[in-house]
Amino acid sequence: MTTDTDFAAALQHKIDFKTKPLGSLGRIEDLATVMATVQGTLSPRMDGCELTIFAADHGIAAEGVSKFPQEVTRQMVLNYLAGGAGANAFARAVGARMKVVDAGIAGEPFGLEGLIERRIGAGTKSFLHEPAMSAEDCARALEEGRKLGAESPADAVAYGEMGIANTASAAALGHKLTGVGLDILVGRGTGLDDDGLTHKRQVLERAAARTGDLGPQEALAQYGGFEIAMMAGAMIGAAEAKKVIIVDGFIATSAALAAARIVPATRAAMVFSHRSEEQGHGALLDALGAEPLLRLGLRLGEGTGALLAWPLLKAAGEMLNTMASFDDAGVTGPQ
Amino acid sequence: MTTDTDFAAALQHKIDFKTKPLGSLGRIEDLATVMATVQGTLSPRMDGCELTIFAADHGIAAEGVSKFPQEVTRQMVLNYLAGGAGANAFARAVGARMKVVDAGIAGEPFGLEGLIERRIGAGTKSFLHEPAMSAEDCARALEEGRKLGAESPADAVAYGEMGIANTASAAALGHKLTGVGLDILVGRGTGLDDDGLTHKRQVLERAAARTGDLGPQEALAQYGGFEIAMMAGAMIGAAEAKKVIIVDGFIATSAALAAARIVPATRAAMVFSHRSEEQGHGALLDALGAEPLLRLGLRLGEGTGALLAWPLLKAAGEMLNTMASFDDAGVTGPQ
Repeated sequence: MTTDTDFAAALQHKIDFKTKPLGSLGRIEDLATVMATVQGTLSPRMDGCELTIFAADHGIAAEGVSKFPQEVTRQMVLNYLAGGAGANAFARAVGARMKVVDAGIAGEPFGLEGLIERRIGAGTKSFLHEPAMSAEDCARALEEGRKLGAESPADAVAYGEMGIANTASAAALGHKLTGVGLDILVGRGTGLDDDGLTHKRQVLERAAARTGDLGPQEALAQYGGFEIAMMAGAMIGAAEAKKVIIVDGFIATSAALAAARIVPATRAAMVFSHRSEEQGHGALLDALGAEPLLRLGLRLGEGTGALLAWPLLKAAGEMLNTMASFDDAGVTGPQ
Repeated sequence: MTTDTDFAAALQHKIDFKTKPLGSLGRIEDLATVMATVQGTLSPRMDGCELTIFAADHGIAAEGVSKFPQEVTRQMVLNYLAGGAGANAFARAVGARMKVVDAGIAGEPFGLEGLIERRIGAGTKSFLHEPAMSAEDCARALEEGRKLGAESPADAVAYGEMGIANTASAAALGHKLTGVGLDILVGRGTGLDDDGLTHKRQVLERAAARTGDLGPQEALAQYGGFEIAMMAGAMIGAAEAKKVIIVDGFIATSAALAAARIVPATRAAMVFSHRSEEQGHGALLDALGAEPLLRLGLRLGEGTGALLAWPLLKAAGEMLNTMASFDDAGVTGPQ
């Protein structure tokens, strides 16, 4: 990361003298600015994207806050490994690599080839009654994530999540980090009906009342999930390693918010891929001063929205690195 | 194209039983529906995208309605052939093929390897004073385009344009096709200042007053450009050949509107890639009942926005063709 004003001026000049009307590539130009600034070069590499899906279970699922049973977390991990999930389909479509991390799924370890085991526990506790995880486990999850984020060989890293009931965790965490009301932050998740939504809000109101003001890492331990904490750590590690972080939807944005509160410099490496249909997403984006690139009515998670933003980053990289300037191409500029 | 309700029900069932919450892939699901319906199969191919850039010159450029001189059309064609333009950069980023058609650039033919010559003339006449092209030339442009659209080997076709002053042509054509006022349809193009914009509006008001009500093909001949007419023809041919048409920005949308008025069935094969910053675009989209996929502040043309929508179509194809169902993956559905 450079804050040198000469660098910023040189970068803007390079973008402005490409063979196009001034500013005519809009947000693609903004992405070029982010990637060049993160890497500290006018010719940033943007060759590969890697999606990491962090999966874990949530004690709060026992309170009936999701439409799907907890066993689906485990089943979906097998679906990722078999290549059959939405994230796999989108990764194939955009040419991204994909890996899957067990950050703490309920039950026994899988012991499967191809699954990265970083289990902090067999699911969190129910944060309705007690902290989701201990302070030590939260620190471990952040640190394991930080290492995973730093060691990726990709120029751009996308993070996805799977964990039944994790919109409940993200809403409670977002509430504690921002002070925004649970009436705004709690949504339908995978498709609750009106009664289900009312119940989820009541559960979360009671859970939130259990604690007062919390620091970001305390909030993460109290209301987060193992996958959310590990993703926050991965974002911190990726930013330290000068990678561009592609933030996915509601749950990933709650992790991004925690990461940016714990290590503020992380924010500058983030690009926000899409505005989710999950109702609390807008408030978390506002807290990060973020305007997502896409709005496609997505609410799946798994990093599916982040994957769809990767071609935009690639386009920005090609624009910066291979598009001709007016001088290069012998094209007359504006009169 | 099929309108069979059994087919529509089977398609919706296939989408709904993929391993995801119902409807959670939003507009990607809509794209899957379009491509399956256009191809008339539940397993549509979505393997390749081809961008064709139609380039031509406009007599109206002599009236000072653009910030760039007319020679830039010719210079940009050389830039496309050399691989240096924004469209080339984006095509590389998303893995699309690209070809360039001279539909009628001012001056002599290029005679260059790699350029497809379909010249209807050496630029149109100034439609301030007379029809831009004859009825015969308009019919020829449509027919040459129709052949190009039908013969493409790609599953998805994107069309771009280059032609100094062609936002003026698109605005006048859009006005005659929709009745929307020129105060709404005329914008800054490549970057006119306030005085330039006022002058452009005055020129177009005078030009529009030269004729009364016109049929779509008459409007195309009176106010269109060779590249706009040929693109409209290409859309008609591509739809006949069961290809998905990715519509770009303001000028491409004026061509799409003409195509849909001349051959209404063409509309069903179109997906709209992005909402341009050129101010008249929204009104033309409204006339087509179209809601674009992306809003990225683009206003370059050349098919750059259309190219950025291609990965979304690929993702929709992968979703429909390779994503597992709940049954396939042994995943428990919603409770």
